[in-house]
Amino acid sequence: MKNASPIDIAWMRRAVELASHGIGSTHPNPVVGCVITNREGHPVGEGFHAISGGPHAEVEALRMAGSQARGGTAYVTLEPCNHTGRTGPCSDALIEAGIARVVYAVPDPNREASGGAEKLSSKNIQVEQGVLQDEAEAVNQVWLHSIRVGRPFVTWKFATTLDGRSAAPDRSSRWITGPLARADVHRKRAECDAIAVGTQTVLDDDPELTVRDEQDNPVGRQPLRVVVGDRDVPVTARVRNDRAKTLLLPTHDPAEVLRQLDDHQIRHLWLEGGPTLAAAFLRARLVDQIVAYIAPAVLGSGFSAIGDLGAESIDHLRRFHLADVTRLGDDVRLTLTPLEPANARTPTGGH
Amino acid sequence: MKNASPIDIAWMRRAVELASHGIGSTHPNPVVGCVITNREGHPVGEGFHAISGGPHAEVEALRMAGSQARGGTAYVTLEPCNHTGRTGPCSDALIEAGIARVVYAVPDPNREASGGAEKLSSKNIQVEQGVLQDEAEAVNQVWLHSIRVGRPFVTWKFATTLDGRSAAPDRSSRWITGPLARADVHRKRAECDAIAVGTQTVLDDDPELTVRDEQDNPVGRQPLRVVVGDRDVPVTARVRNDRAKTLLLPTHDPAEVLRQLDDHQIRHLWLEGGPTLAAAFLRARLVDQIVAYIAPAVLGSGFSAIGDLGAESIDHLRRFHLADVTRLGDDVRLTLTPLEPANARTPTGGH
Repeated sequence: MKNASPIDIAWMRRAVELASHGIGSTHPNPVVGCVITNREGHPVGEGFHAISGGPHAEVEALRMAGSQARGGTAYVTLEPCNHTGRTGPCSDALIEAGIARVVYAVPDPNREASGGAEKLSSKNIQVEQGVLQDEAEAVNQVWLHSIRVGRPFVTWKFATTLDGRSAAPDRSSRWITGPLARADVHRKRAECDAIAVGTQTVLDDDPELTVRDEQDNPVGRQPLRVVVGDRDVPVTARVRNDRAKTLLLPTHDPAEVLRQLDDHQIRHLWLEGGPTLAAAFLRARLVDQIVAYIAPAVLGSGFSAIGDLGAESIDHLRRFHLADVTRLGDDVRLTLTPLEPANARTPTGGH
Repeated sequence: MKNASPIDIAWMRRAVELASHGIGSTHPNPVVGCVITNREGHPVGEGFHAISGGPHAEVEALRMAGSQARGGTAYVTLEPCNHTGRTGPCSDALIEAGIARVVYAVPDPNREASGGAEKLSSKNIQVEQGVLQDEAEAVNQVWLHSIRVGRPFVTWKFATTLDGRSAAPDRSSRWITGPLARADVHRKRAECDAIAVGTQTVLDDDPELTVRDEQDNPVGRQPLRVVVGDRDVPVTARVRNDRAKTLLLPTHDPAEVLRQLDDHQIRHLWLEGGPTLAAAFLRARLVDQIVAYIAPAVLGSGFSAIGDLGAESIDHLRRFHLADVTRLGDDVRLTLTPLEPANARTPTGGH
C-alpha cells in the first residue's frame, strides 16, 4: 500500500514482531501476528499463531479484545484465511466480531486458504493490503518461499576450518567450532522442520540430528530426521532412536528428496551434509541459503565440506551474496543467499 | 606507570595517534610520536617519525615548539634514543631544549639505542615511564616484535573460497575476492617491508608483488620482493622487473629465510604463499598473524591455500585467536593471532 499512515505502520510493525514469536513452531503453517485497535484507535487485543493446530493470530487477538473489537481495526501480517482447517476461517471470525477495517501486509499465496480479503470486502469491511509488506514477507520468508516455489526452503549448513576442511583425514570432525557456534546450530535446527544428511555422514559420524540443549538433552519439538542415499542405515544408528521421527529416502536426486518432503508438508529443510549430498543440491541449484560456521583454525589436510561441483577453472566459481556476518565466540557465521533465485520444484524444467 | 594523570594520558594518546602516521614508512625504525607542552601545560609542538632517515619525532616536535619547550614536558611513545645514527641522539636534543620532564610509554628494547632515560635522569630531568604503554606497544607491534624476538614479524595472507580453495584445478585463481578486498591487500602490503612467495607461485601466477593503486599502477615505497625456493625464476618473471627490489632465497627453511631477512633489517614480512611455503612457516610456528580474505563462493575442487601440516586427526587442528572480523564488500577479512607466541629466531631452539 502506498502512503500508509504512520499509525497503520506502527501497528503493523507490532503485528510483525508478534508473528516472529511463532518462528519454528508453526510448521507447516505460516507465522502470523495480529493487533486489534478499537473504534478510537486504542489497542485492545493482540495475538500470534504460536503452534500448528493452535488458534490463529486473529482469533487470539479477538479473544483478548472481546466486545471492544466492534467497529475497530485488525492489523494482520498475512491475509486472513478463508479456510476451515483445524480452526474456522479467520475472515468469518473478524466479520462476527464486527471489525470495521482490516489492514493486512501479505496476500495469502496458498490457493486453499486465500479469498479472505474478498469475503471481508463483500461484507462491507474496509480492506487494505501492503502495509509493511517487505518486513512481513521477511518474517515469513521460509513459508512463503515454500508455497510459492512448491518445495521446501533449503538451508545448507556446514562447519569448516579456514582452509575449508570439515573433517580430518581419519574422518574425525568433533569439534571444529566452539560452544557458541554449536549452540547456534541447535537454535537454527529448531527453526526448521526437517534435518537431512547423507548415509555416508550417518556411517561416519553417527549424528543424532536432534535439537539439544547445552547439557546435550533433547529440547522442544524435534524436526523430522531425513537420511538420503542408498546405503543401509544400521538399526543401531543414533538417527534411528526414538527421540524424533526419521525418514529414509533411498535416492540421490535432490529434486526427488524435496518432492517427498513437500508431500510431508516440510517447509524448511536444514541440510547438514556431507559433501556429496551438499554438492548434489548445489549442482541442482536447490540451495536457498548457506550458513557457514568458520573456525579460526587450519588443518592442512582432510575432507572438504563440499564434493566436486565440476569446476575446472576459476570461471566456474559459484558466487553468493553475503547476507550476514556474525561473530560467535572465536568462530564466525556467514549467511549467504543465491545471486539468482534457486530452482523451483523441477530443477531441470528451465526455471 | 600507575595512576597516570588524565592530562598525561591525554597527551600520550595524541602522541600515539601521531606515531601511527608513520606505519609502513619508517622501516627498519620504529614509529614514534611526540607532543611537547610548555611550562604552563599548553601544547606547543608535536611530531612523528615519518620516514626512515628523516628527523625523529622529538626533533620534529622540538623544532615546532622552539623556545617554548624550555621548562616544559615531552610526551614520547618510545624511550628517547641515546644513539647517534643518521640523526643525533634525541636525549641530547631534549636536554639542550631545556625540557624539564619527559614522559614515555615504552622502554627501547634496542640495545644499541637504549639508555636515553638514564641519560635524561642524570641531567636532572624528571623521567616517567609506562603511560598508555599498551596502546603505544600496539602501534609499534611489528617493530617491537622484530627487535625482541630477533626476526621479522610474519603475516601470512591468503584469499580463499568458503570451501578453502585458493585456485581452481587448472591453477587459475583470479579473482576469488572482490575489488575492496584486493585494495585492502595493497594497503596492507604497503605497511610491510618485504613480500614473499614461493617459486611455484611465481611460475603459476607470475605475480608482480608490488603495491599498486586501483588503476594497477605502482604507488609509493615498494617492499622488498622475496622469492623462496630452489627452482629457477625466469628472467621474464614480473617479480624481476624494475618496479621494486627482489631477493631470491634458494632455501626451503623458513628460519633461514627469516635470518636472511633480519640481516636485511626487514621488520615485517608479508607472506603470500603458495601452500607449500605457508605450510612450512606454519609447521615451524613462525607465523605471527594470519590475514584471510574469504569470498562468499564455493569451488568444490582445486587447490587449498595451505599444504599438508601432517594432521591426521581433528586433534591436530591448529587453532588461532580471532582478533578481528571485517566485511569488505561481499568478502570477509579475518585476522588471527597465535594462541601461544610464535617461535623466536631459532625455531628448533625450544622457545
